[in-house]
Amino acid sequence: MSEEGCIFCDIVAGKIPCYKVYEDERTLAFMDINPVTPGHVLVIPKSHYENLIEMVPGDLAAVHQTSQKVTAAIFAALKPGGVAVLQLNGKGANQIVMHYHVHLIPRNRPKDKLKMFEWAPKKGNVRSIKSKQSKIIEAL
Amino acid sequence: MSEEGCIFCDIVAGKIPCYKVYEDERTLAFMDINPVTPGHVLVIPKSHYENLIEMVPGDLAAVHQTSQKVTAAIFAALKPGGVAVLQLNGKGANQIVMHYHVHLIPRNRPKDKLKMFEWAPKKGNVRSIKSKQSKIIEAL
Repeated sequence: MSEEGCIFCDIVAGKIPCYKVYEDERTLAFMDINPVTPGHVLVIPKSHYENLIEMVPGDLAAVHQTSQKVTAAIFAALKPGGVAVLQLNGKGANQIVMHYHVHLIPRNRPKDKLKMFEWAPKKGNVRSIKSKQSKIIEAL
Repeated sequence: MSEEGCIFCDIVAGKIPCYKVYEDERTLAFMDINPVTPGHVLVIPKSHYENLIEMVPGDLAAVHQTSQKVTAAIFAALKPGGVAVLQLNGKGANQIVMHYHVHLIPRNRPKDKLKMFEWAPKKGNVRSIKSKQSKIIEAL
């Protein structure tokens, strides 16, 4: 269920901290620390799967239920113009962490240019991240 | 269940043709006629929902089961380096058709630059579309 050396498995196990926004039996949602835009959240299954192909039906359904719940919270909390739900499969599609994960990326302003491939990971401001985290938790 | 004037509802009803790759009780998958890259597929619920927030659990799970199935077929058929699964919510996130849909976008070569927001819809070559369609159907 858990993969040695996988950063997301370590987050699930509590060995690495995260800015958690939601958790249930099967899934975990937390802030991306390299947000593409403010409010960028990751949703993962607690069990390790490399990609969409490997997912079992129960975890796949659970991840998207959680994504729905958190997306509703992002809309309520941050009032973005929209939210992109993005999930990359394969290094050739720029998947960096090889544990299935869904990006929830709010687009706050029309001028946010979001290149969904090859975006440059840019370290986020921790205060801003925590502030968005709180707002989202409040809205859940 | 069906929305007047919705192009995807018209596709489900058979009023507008599509390059179908898969269909089951709840979902339909067909080639995007303005492919971002060759092999670009759309997966939709047959019932009308504007976005992720509106989806009922059974249809949400079914769409992602279908996406999984078709993504596996895209990998098998087209041997891309990766596949992006993208779903846009809200006009502010560049959602064009207001019927929930999931994009499956293979990235065939590293030089495919995929801007997932504000990509310019570029009419695809019908022969190329049909050829990808056949290969995917074969692999299903």
